Amino acid sequence: MGNEKTEEKTVIGLKFDSQGLIPAIIQDDETGDVLTLFWMNDEAVRKTNETGRVWRYSRQHAQLMQKGDTSGHYLNVRRVLYDCDEDALVVRVQAVGPACHTGERTCFYRELG
Amino acid sequence: MGNEKTEEKTVIGLKFDSQGLIPAIIQDDETGDVLTLFWMNDEAVRKTNETGRVWRYSRQHAQLMQKGDTSGHYLNVRRVLYDCDEDALVVRVQAVGPACHTGERTCFYRELG
Repeated sequence: MGNEKTEEKTVIGLKFDSQGLIPAIIQDDETGDVLTLFWMNDEAVRKTNETGRVWRYSRQHAQLMQKGDTSGHYLNVRRVLYDCDEDALVVRVQAVGPACHTGERTCFYRELG
Repeated sequence: MGNEKTEEKTVIGLKFDSQGLIPAIIQDDETGDVLTLFWMNDEAVRKTNETGRVWRYSRQHAQLMQKGDTSGHYLNVRRVLYDCDEDALVVRVQAVGPACHTGERTCFYRELG
């Protein structure tokens, strides 16, 4: 990534949408591959920071979940970046096993024809 | 990226949210860096495919825009990937100039403290 600046930034400073969520792009820190796109609420961001593992808010299950709790495929956090508008995150991770529930390494395994 | 499968997929098959939008992760095809997160409506996806340059739906301006029309910093499309749920895109691009309106190469230039 190179030229990012590290600034003091509280989780509170992030902008969440009308549903209280922020998109979090999960990226493999070694390969650079985008693994998946999660949604986080304030608590998911906090828990991701505190535990060093990725937590997300599942819109389908309407609950906070630690990625890997069911599958064992945890995502260990290396760095969390936020964008110029403070309404999106990139979480660079070390992935334990496939990130996708289909068993694929990344959720983005298909190309638009 | 490696093991993605190419499948026939119409733009229509993608799932847009209640506002008719789908998140599109814009990624530098050479470095792997995530440059920005855009929102696309159906027309933006179509125009991105047809023109080979990234179009987005600006929620702030409530209109379809070609990235670079103002700045000259176009994003040339290399590949478009879609995820397992068909509700998110990764657009791998060759970037002409900085992708961020701040002049930074990527919008994700700050790290969460």
